[in-house]
Amino acid sequence: MAPRYAPSLRSRLAPVLLLLQLSFIVIYAFYTEIQYHGKPHGDTFSNIYPEFQDVNVMAILGFGFLGTFLVRYGFSASAFNLLVAVMATQWALILNGIEAYSGKIRLDMRSLVEAEMCTASVLISIGVVLGKTNPVQLILISLLEVSGFILNKWVLQNLLKVRLVDSIMMLHVFGAFFGLMLTWILYRKGSEEQFEKETFHHRSGLFSMLGTVFLWMFWPSFNSVLVDDRSPGRKLEAVCSTYLALAVSSVTAAAVSVLSSPKGKLNLIHMQRCTLAGGVAVGVAMSVVHQPWEAMMIGFTAAVVSTIGHRYLKTQMLLAFQCHDTCAVLSTHGLPGLLGWTAHLLLQLKDCENHTTAIRFAVFHICTLLLTVTISLSMGIITGLILKWDFWRPPQDKKCFDDQAFWEFSNLAVKK
Amino acid sequence: MAPRYAPSLRSRLAPVLLLLQLSFIVIYAFYTEIQYHGKPHGDTFSNIYPEFQDVNVMAILGFGFLGTFLVRYGFSASAFNLLVAVMATQWALILNGIEAYSGKIRLDMRSLVEAEMCTASVLISIGVVLGKTNPVQLILISLLEVSGFILNKWVLQNLLKVRLVDSIMMLHVFGAFFGLMLTWILYRKGSEEQFEKETFHHRSGLFSMLGTVFLWMFWPSFNSVLVDDRSPGRKLEAVCSTYLALAVSSVTAAAVSVLSSPKGKLNLIHMQRCTLAGGVAVGVAMSVVHQPWEAMMIGFTAAVVSTIGHRYLKTQMLLAFQCHDTCAVLSTHGLPGLLGWTAHLLLQLKDCENHTTAIRFAVFHICTLLLTVTISLSMGIITGLILKWDFWRPPQDKKCFDDQAFWEFSNLAVKK
Amino acid sequence: MAPRYAPSLRSRLAPVLLLLQLSFIVIYAFYTEIQYHGKPHGDTFSNIYPEFQDVNVMAILGFGFLGTFLVRYGFSASAFNLLVAVMATQWALILNGIEAYSGKIRLDMRSLVEAEMCTASVLISIGVVLGKTNPVQLILISLLEVSGFILNKWVLQNLLKVRLVDSIMMLHVFGAFFGLMLTWILYRKGSEEQFEKETFHHRSGLFSMLGTVFLWMFWPSFNSVLVDDRSPGRKLEAVCSTYLALAVSSVTAAAVSVLSSPKGKLNLIHMQRCTLAGGVAVGVAMSVVHQPWEAMMIGFTAAVVSTIGHRYLKTQMLLAFQCHDTCAVLSTHGLPGLLGWTAHLLLQLKDCENHTTAIRFAVFHICTLLLTVTISLSMGIITGLILKWDFWRPPQDKKCFDDQAFWEFSNLAVKK
Repeated sequence: MAPRYAPSLRSRLAPVLLLLQLSFIVIYAFYTEIQYHGKPHGDTFSNIYPEFQDVNVMAILGFGFLGTFLVRYGFSASAFNLLVAVMATQWALILNGIEAYSGKIRLDMRSLVEAEMCTASVLISIGVVLGKTNPVQLILISLLEVSGFILNKWVLQNLLKVRLVDSIMMLHVFGAFFGLMLTWILYRKGSEEQFEKETFHHRSGLFSMLGTVFLWMFWPSFNSVLVDDRSPGRKLEAVCSTYLALAVSSVTAAAVSVLSSPKGKLNLIHMQRCTLAGGVAVGVAMSVVHQPWEAMMIGFTAAVVSTIGHRYLKTQMLLAFQCHDTCAVLSTHGLPGLLGWTAHLLLQLKDCENHTTAIRFAVFHICTLLLTVTISLSMGIITGLILKWDFWRPPQDKKCFDDQAFWEFSNLAVKK
Repeated sequence: MAPRYAPSLRSRLAPVLLLLQLSFIVIYAFYTEIQYHGKPHGDTFSNIYPEFQDVNVMAILGFGFLGTFLVRYGFSASAFNLLVAVMATQWALILNGIEAYSGKIRLDMRSLVEAEMCTASVLISIGVVLGKTNPVQLILISLLEVSGFILNKWVLQNLLKVRLVDSIMMLHVFGAFFGLMLTWILYRKGSEEQFEKETFHHRSGLFSMLGTVFLWMFWPSFNSVLVDDRSPGRKLEAVCSTYLALAVSSVTAAAVSVLSSPKGKLNLIHMQRCTLAGGVAVGVAMSVVHQPWEAMMIGFTAAVVSTIGHRYLKTQMLLAFQCHDTCAVLSTHGLPGLLGWTAHLLLQLKDCENHTTAIRFAVFHICTLLLTVTISLSMGIITGLILKWDFWRPPQDKKCFDDQAFWEFSNLAVKK
Repeated sequence: MAPRYAPSLRSRLAPVLLLLQLSFIVIYAFYTEIQYHGKPHGDTFSNIYPEFQDVNVMAILGFGFLGTFLVRYGFSASAFNLLVAVMATQWALILNGIEAYSGKIRLDMRSLVEAEMCTASVLISIGVVLGKTNPVQLILISLLEVSGFILNKWVLQNLLKVRLVDSIMMLHVFGAFFGLMLTWILYRKGSEEQFEKETFHHRSGLFSMLGTVFLWMFWPSFNSVLVDDRSPGRKLEAVCSTYLALAVSSVTAAAVSVLSSPKGKLNLIHMQRCTLAGGVAVGVAMSVVHQPWEAMMIGFTAAVVSTIGHRYLKTQMLLAFQCHDTCAVLSTHGLPGLLGWTAHLLLQLKDCENHTTAIRFAVFHICTLLLTVTISLSMGIITGLILKWDFWRPPQDKKCFDDQAFWEFSNLAVKK
């Protein structure tokens, strides 16, 4: 049988990108302006800029290189991540701006940071479908998911009076469940057998280690950047807690990985993912974590849950629920996110003075989770159904996890 | 025929490096001092230091790893970039200091940043001749080009009253034309055929992606670091504009790359270079860009021009003008730089109140470009003629683009 | 003969990690708290945070990727570095806190930075034994060495009234001598022959170049972060001096490497290590370096010493003293550290007004070195003797420098 070539991207990707980009430019031309506001949140430009850059490095480099562990998919993982990130951020800037609309959408460092954090939920979700989708599908995911996430944020803030930081930190849970629904809808028959090229290779492994390390190092910025600077010490607490949680979860992930290995060896995927679980969990619980040991216990539990999830859950999810989760996002972001939510609940209850406020808080907190999961699952299903349309020309099974489907490879590439 | 070994570097490189370095130390001993000046430009140390580090990362890591796409030239690309950067910066510190001389040359964070930005023009130029020159030649280029660039800056600032930021941002145009003259003079017969080892490989491709990503992420710092902090909001404008321009040019580069590909696929070189075109163009026009849509339109046009340039121009330049441009610097920095200059002109004219000032500005602005191009071309020719001298022992054609010409490779390398 | 498998890590690594980590959590629960103190050292949060991140990047990414030059040991080098760094930092936070104890150990940005700098001495030492030890041994080293280093710091500060910055900067000397004793005690017969897999490969070489470049770029932060901000200008001096010293040592290392090469070529290991020598030396002498030329001369000498050390010393150390020094730490940190100590002495003597204070200073300064070397050597011997115990199951000679001894490699790694 003649080999089937990967479908050309020309008639789908190029028009979609150009159309969206030009629409964005038109919207920005009429509705946005760059505005400098003395010190609205106690931030001056030079206070927030270094933290913005850390978050930027995490979004572009960290998430981008995390996906390069797929031996033949490094270019796609890093370049599509960039594309998705910039589309999602531009869209999130608009949507976030509509919320606080007053004549013009205001752009400043803080709105950029907020937009990048909404984008992070998309970058988490595309980890689930990485390698099984084409760039057009990824762009669609980015727009739909950002819309869903900002809707969710709006609902939480306005209906349940959840604080901005807390509502944004639900991004881990939102992203994970959105991605799982997506991959469930897009399930391909026969993928219980591993995809031909879905292998981890020790050569590309160091690139994904690099992505991990950047996420690990700058996670304190991610968790602290939106914390209000006016009450001195809150930012310091966020940074120290995150650092300690990450430290503990690195150690714990290594221990649990060895314990659960039949041969008593470390697993590199665990070292690359589960070391980050502490940052996820402590981020979700951030506003009530005040003591170092609280952060450390959260980091410890998150790493245990995440490592065990990585070891056993991925295969089960595939066999039982037909969810093929490329980057094991459920164990990296989903479970630690839920754990962080639980920790938030418990720590807040501990501090409550009487039963009434405790029960009131618990009800609100549980509603927060239920709403987030509901919106995330339904947006995931809607997005999945849209993407299932053959019009988008998804890659064939044989071309999954392969750069060759999307990239020109030729010795003349440079010269041309 | 017996294989010809690459010429030893001992009798040329070592004396040149030691001589220059010792002379620098002597000059620094007599004429420089580290001086702390309260807040001359509204900068305190901790305001400017993070931005200095971003620029430093771009110069050392970004440009260094951008050249590693050459599969056998990774060590040379990254290490020679470091050598050139530190020589050029030391020299630029001296020359910049002479300009504002008053007893002693003052070193502080701002002068370091200015020197590194002058260095950037050299790092752009060596991209043109990468792989076809030896390190001694690169060192000579660095000294001569920095001298030329600072002369140009001095002329622009004193004759045409161009602001410092605007004169420094001509570095993209200056570097590109300087490099093109250089490679035109150094043309080797037969290089219309591709050099044997001038190939792009998917393995080294991820390293150059890394360089790209660092340039992309920190470009807002590059464009904003010299913007005066005293008028609050100007820095914010510079950062937001650059971010938006880069975002738009990433999307546009992908679209145009697919559109212009015969097979309808993306080209990795385009994704690594043309995504940066927006940052180049908006940097040149920075002082008149105030609205988001202006930055975005500049980013859009720059990416279109740059991607089309990459697709068709490189071969044409070689065949028609005998200019072999290794990193396609003309399309990455030259054309977007010219575009930024045009955008600067148009935006400024739009804001002018009457015809007199408009015409006056246009004349000055055109003179700025003409002067820059003239000085850049003539310095390029002079430098090229000096480098053509066989005394410098350029690598043979067979050893072009090959680390083996310059580096010891042996399994004992570690042990020795 | 049947192949002998590498010993399982399960029964040693997992219990050690879990036990230590849980003990740390208990200690932190009872004795630490995160405290915000207005401006104790003139630092506000946003002044010190970017520099903390730079140091963090050096510790986790810089040192971690520096060891990836070993072609088959990249995962271990980067991941074990992370493990060691977080264990050592948690332990150093406790020990440093005991020193200044008053009810609770205070955690803030400054104590985190101090702890990470104590950790740096461990990261230097493990470079000596890299590839010849298992992770359990590395964890033990980290705890014992941090204890030794903080003891040394305490003795220097309290007995000899050495300033904090000066006592911490002895970390290079301390780490190098500690590591050498360790490798001397752990000497394996037959290792005058090179280990089978102890080879430098051009593929993994770019990863270690990346580590180098990050250390190089952020070294100014490493040397300046603890400098007191209240006397304006001291931080600026530290940053500029370090930058100049690094620049000079890059140029000098290249020159000396070519000069000392039989074939007149550059050596990549020299370019990766000796370019850093200037930063080491100038850091040790930091508190008395005020002029640019002083920093540059220190950088020049350090690079000469370090490059010559790399070229000739490693083999000699092995043959004469049975010290197998994987990363040539003696030449990278030991000798430049001693040189910096000497420069400190000479520069201080130059500034002394009369003989009495000069002699007094010299005696104290010599005692500082003697004490540091003594404590470092004795702690190294004690640690070495503990590690020699077969209970820790060191890797067999055949499994040295091989990731396979510790990591699961299988195509199913991802799916599991």
